[in-house]
Amino acid sequence: MYKLYNVKAWGSMGVHFLLEEMEVPYTNIWMTAEQVRAPEFRAVSPLGYIPALGLPDGRGLFESAAIVSFLVTAHADKGLSPAPGSAAFGEFLSWLHLASGLYTTMNIKYDAGFYGRNDAEAAHITARVKEKCDALWAILAARLEAEEPWFLGKIYSALDTYVFMLSIWASPSEAALHGKFPAIARLAKGVRQRPKLKAALEAHGVMEVKN
Amino acid sequence: MYKLYNVKAWGSMGVHFLLEEMEVPYTNIWMTAEQVRAPEFRAVSPLGYIPALGLPDGRGLFESAAIVSFLVTAHADKGLSPAPGSAAFGEFLSWLHLASGLYTTMNIKYDAGFYGRNDAEAAHITARVKEKCDALWAILAARLEAEEPWFLGKIYSALDTYVFMLSIWASPSEAALHGKFPAIARLAKGVRQRPKLKAALEAHGVMEVKN
Repeated sequence: MYKLYNVKAWGSMGVHFLLEEMEVPYTNIWMTAEQVRAPEFRAVSPLGYIPALGLPDGRGLFESAAIVSFLVTAHADKGLSPAPGSAAFGEFLSWLHLASGLYTTMNIKYDAGFYGRNDAEAAHITARVKEKCDALWAILAARLEAEEPWFLGKIYSALDTYVFMLSIWASPSEAALHGKFPAIARLAKGVRQRPKLKAALEAHGVMEVKN
Repeated sequence: MYKLYNVKAWGSMGVHFLLEEMEVPYTNIWMTAEQVRAPEFRAVSPLGYIPALGLPDGRGLFESAAIVSFLVTAHADKGLSPAPGSAAFGEFLSWLHLASGLYTTMNIKYDAGFYGRNDAEAAHITARVKEKCDALWAILAARLEAEEPWFLGKIYSALDTYVFMLSIWASPSEAALHGKFPAIARLAKGVRQRPKLKAALEAHGVMEVKN
């Protein structure tokens, strides 16, 4: 059975949603921020990041998009991505990695105090991060708008729940992102209506759009 | 037949090496930096980044680690990764994504003038990027040292050529990285000795360690 190292409303949401959609057996290991930062957790996740996924054979997987890519290939029969190895699967991976790049870019804001020498420099970096993220959101929204209802057209996939997770964290707010990109608002609405996701959405406290 | 959008010594090297190892048919489309920056290229690669991979059906894939993940699943018989869907494949993906995160972090230095308001701020950001990269190199080197000769022990995989590509770009130099992490030096030596890679290594001008 899988073990999901999970923190409420953190980056483990994407994997959590996927496991629920797939209906594969797993256990949630709910963690506090302090437990995530503890040196022992580095044995599971080398960078000390959430999510991590414990496999039945004792291996620990890390990096959210890697875990998503693993799960859709390990459980290809669940249909949460195009068939592994197909051209459509390549497209799925390309957009998943582009979205993962947005995730990495968003996280630079948490390092603003590391990259900047004082509050003014950090504030400038944070503003620049937002510019970069806005440009990436525009690219994702344009793709979605051309393909709706989902990123791969009629095929609902792990890409949709992954991007939905990122949209919750948008700056200045999820609601502002929806105002700017209606296709993302429709995606979020569609994901929130998935019956299998209800319990996980409630567990992370993300059932409602954040203002 | 695949079309690889390729620039000498740029991020397309990793995919180029993999295609050569796999001996699958493809055409190199050698590009200049100017052609990469041209608006038309965005139709293939939404962010205007190299590499991109044109598929026989006309689709364009992008994001280097996504293309690598696609190729190893589409040509699983070539054995350049553990079997897709296996626990070892999950481990392969986790380390590939961690390495891809190093790639993204390295690239922040090209945006130092965007994140900083002047030369002094940009210089500080560049120095901080190096610190972040050094921490990631330490994690990669520790993994490699525990598993040698390759990242997955005795299994040579696309992860090895991918990390080798990153090592060429290390700051202040590839040679300095080797001095700090002998396991990475041994990896680079091993990759450079792969007979199938000779032509591609020469095409990118990376046969010798960079000082």
